[in-house]
Amino acid sequence: MTGGPRWDRRRLLRTGAAAFGGAGAGWSTSALVAGSASADSASGSASGSVAAPTVIAPSPGAETVPPEGNHQPGVVTPPQAHLALVGWDLHEDATVEHLARMMRLLSDDARRLGQGEGALADTEPELAAHPSRLTVTFGFGPRVLRDLVPASRRPALAELPEFSRDRLRPEWGQSDVVAQICCDDPLTLAHARRMLVKDARAFADVRWIQQGFRNARGTLSQGTTMRNLMGQVDGTVNLAEAEPDFAPLVWADGTSGPEAFAGGTFLVVRRIRMQLERWDRVDRVGREAVVGRRLDTGAPLTGEAEFDEPDFEATDRFGFPVIDPASHIARVRHTTPEERFLRRSYNYTEPDDTRSSGEDSGLLFLAFAADPARQFVPVQQRMDEVDRLNDWIVTIGSAVYAVPPAAAEGGYVGQALLEGTGEQP
Amino acid sequence: MTGGPRWDRRRLLRTGAAAFGGAGAGWSTSALVAGSASADSASGSASGSVAAPTVIAPSPGAETVPPEGNHQPGVVTPPQAHLALVGWDLHEDATVEHLARMMRLLSDDARRLGQGEGALADTEPELAAHPSRLTVTFGFGPRVLRDLVPASRRPALAELPEFSRDRLRPEWGQSDVVAQICCDDPLTLAHARRMLVKDARAFADVRWIQQGFRNARGTLSQGTTMRNLMGQVDGTVNLAEAEPDFAPLVWADGTSGPEAFAGGTFLVVRRIRMQLERWDRVDRVGREAVVGRRLDTGAPLTGEAEFDEPDFEATDRFGFPVIDPASHIARVRHTTPEERFLRRSYNYTEPDDTRSSGEDSGLLFLAFAADPARQFVPVQQRMDEVDRLNDWIVTIGSAVYAVPPAAAEGGYVGQALLEGTGEQP
Ligand code: HEM
Ligand code: HEM
Repeated sequence: MTGGPRWDRRRLLRTGAAAFGGAGAGWSTSALVAGSASADSASGSASGSVAAPTVIAPSPGAETVPPEGNHQPGVVTPPQAHLALVGWDLHEDATVEHLARMMRLLSDDARRLGQGEGALADTEPELAAHPSRLTVTFGFGPRVLRDLVPASRRPALAELPEFSRDRLRPEWGQSDVVAQICCDDPLTLAHARRMLVKDARAFADVRWIQQGFRNARGTLSQGTTMRNLMGQVDGTVNLAEAEPDFAPLVWADGTSGPEAFAGGTFLVVRRIRMQLERWDRVDRVGREAVVGRRLDTGAPLTGEAEFDEPDFEATDRFGFPVIDPASHIARVRHTTPEERFLRRSYNYTEPDDTRSSGEDSGLLFLAFAADPARQFVPVQQRMDEVDRLNDWIVTIGSAVYAVPPAAAEGGYVGQALLEGTGEQP
Repeated sequence: MTGGPRWDRRRLLRTGAAAFGGAGAGWSTSALVAGSASADSASGSASGSVAAPTVIAPSPGAETVPPEGNHQPGVVTPPQAHLALVGWDLHEDATVEHLARMMRLLSDDARRLGQGEGALADTEPELAAHPSRLTVTFGFGPRVLRDLVPASRRPALAELPEFSRDRLRPEWGQSDVVAQICCDDPLTLAHARRMLVKDARAFADVRWIQQGFRNARGTLSQGTTMRNLMGQVDGTVNLAEAEPDFAPLVWADGTSGPEAFAGGTFLVVRRIRMQLERWDRVDRVGREAVVGRRLDTGAPLTGEAEFDEPDFEATDRFGFPVIDPASHIARVRHTTPEERFLRRSYNYTEPDDTRSSGEDSGLLFLAFAADPARQFVPVQQRMDEVDRLNDWIVTIGSAVYAVPPAAAEGGYVGQALLEGTGEQP
């Protein structure tokens, strides 16, 4: 690689990014406010006035996500703009050794790509040069756990029960292995995905690739909740890493489950198609009643601001509840402290000429939980029974995965499950 | 719409953006270097030190593309990160009145959406609130010109000749109308696309939607050339708006063509699949020989830096040309001053389970020219005859469009062609 100056500049920008709050920091206005002599000398474009403090912006392309201790990245990481969710089925005759080799390869790729380096035999390392907060999060489906992980080390993962309203299509169904690849740059993402798919080919077939997106990095100021394709503010009430409940609700520990899985979590994937054509016919008052929140601000119908606590007891002058008990937030709100999980969903839209709208759009609902059966299933069950939102959505894909803890130094993701050790053999 | 303060802040950011160079300015480091008292008072997060000049960053989400005189936007606009190219076929019985109504509706939508406002009957105006340099560029296919535009006002547009290596698929073929929708934000783009498709439904059927992407806004510093999925720096030698040749090569004038089309241009669309699996097997030296340029810097094989002029006469110590005469740049380089056009291509990648790679990836080659038959066809012809790149690419879609001048005040795009007037009737 030639072009030293360019690299020097990149390194500098990376340092700059760290100084402005590191990988987790949003690309917000306030993050760009500063004065720094060193940045000044390096920016190469002083503003012209003498001794005026100038600012070097963190380059969002250079940002990397630091390790999360014994957790894989891509769970607590503030959601990146783009998602590629890759589901693989292992070859018929795959053994635990095959899976171990595959995971060693892919873990290594993920680590390198996350640093802005090419994958091991990367044919286009230049396409990896802007990591843009790339993270890869791996998971194993129920069949892998059952067939390739000994009972003593096996995390308890049941397939989701069938829900009456699901209209599942096999093409979006459960796979053996998943990689949740997230990145703020769509080109870096496309390349990383291709490298992972290529390196997995000797061991597994791609079952599906699900692409998703949120607002571009920088569009919203930091901390602003995204909107989904129905136009709703989506993600207001969610687990925050700072809450004391976060860790027990998201991370598996070694007491209720196997030690080999401590620091892991579970991922629920639901591909939920929106019937936007029909949704368009509902007026704003109707739409707000369906969710129980306002469309403009995302505030509950009983409040003023997005994060106001909804008041499910409040009634209007006719004595009717302001928030319909059949509204989405009334139905999915937790009824016990356990019924909470980390939502990390993405919008999806694919051209689809079999539909009159010409597209298939919806939400890739992604949720992380330490125990989906206790935390997620009862909520989904309630939603399945009654939820006004159901008139405009239909779930067409569903899968669950055990997301192992992070790879140990020199090891790979899933090693403790597959080999019973986190060390290099 | 409530939430005054939020809107005030948005308006301010927009002003801020303009102060930093307006919509055309890149989201580059240098664009963020400044000190401004008014920005200071508004940023709401002074850096803490007294009287320290602070900086407000232009919010990339608030940026709008200013009108381009009598040209539609999205041609000279520095390419946005995301593309949705929508091709429509008019209903069988469509008359010029139908097309006029459709274009009036869509032009109005495009104008509003480009300003961050909802489309006319927008059902989710909040999804339009971050225009992120949204532009919509409309074009008419040959059949529309022939059947619905009188000869006196009809720009000369021939369908492209058949090229021997093309493997065209009807699903990516010529449509009657096209909208090139470009935006730095994928959510704003998805919404805009849906609104346009919805409003066109009474008049036309979607034939295809082609999605494309480049690096995210902010990943590369301003002026850096993008890379395509083969990893090559792509777009180095291109027409720049500042060149005196730009206008005659890109914009139709009223002398060689009809007055009603003055300020218009033509768009060539080629969907070119890359055979990345096979490309992976070529080593770097081989890859560089195929194009005639280096993979790392994009410099010609006879030069040091990206923008060095290639020397096609230079030979190595064995007397062989350094740049292979069959290389891509040797073949497609203009042989007359006319053989130049504005390339504005995007990468594409779609999951495709009929292919062993699991994906269909390539380049949506988009080129604007005042006269494709003279400017583009001879180059494509030469490439079709010999070009080492042909071993790894295959063109599967092809179309051409006349891109009318911008809508007159109160009018719509295409009005001068369809009605012979730019004024409101
Ligand atoms: C396309 C399908 C869905 C859409 C459009 C949707 C939309 C929304 C919206 C607009 C909110 C209010 C804002 C917020 O707090 O995030 C919300 C809240 C929530 N949703 Fe959904 N949702 C969908 C599916 C689901 C599913 C499948 C589940 C789980 C079974 C779920 C669980 C939740 C939870 C737990 C909350 C927070 C409720 C509270 O405590 O206030 N959602 N959703
Ligand atoms: C997937 C297909 C293609 C790929 C990967 C590709 C790639 C490249 C690359 C890497 C360059 C050198 C850098 C630059 O100047 O941009 C280039 C230049 C160029 N390409 Fe292509 N290209 C493709 C298709 C085409 C087609 C279809 C045409 C037109 C028929 C074309 C016309 C040009 C021109 C005019 C140049 C500048 C040549 C010069 O004057 O140096 N390319 N292309």
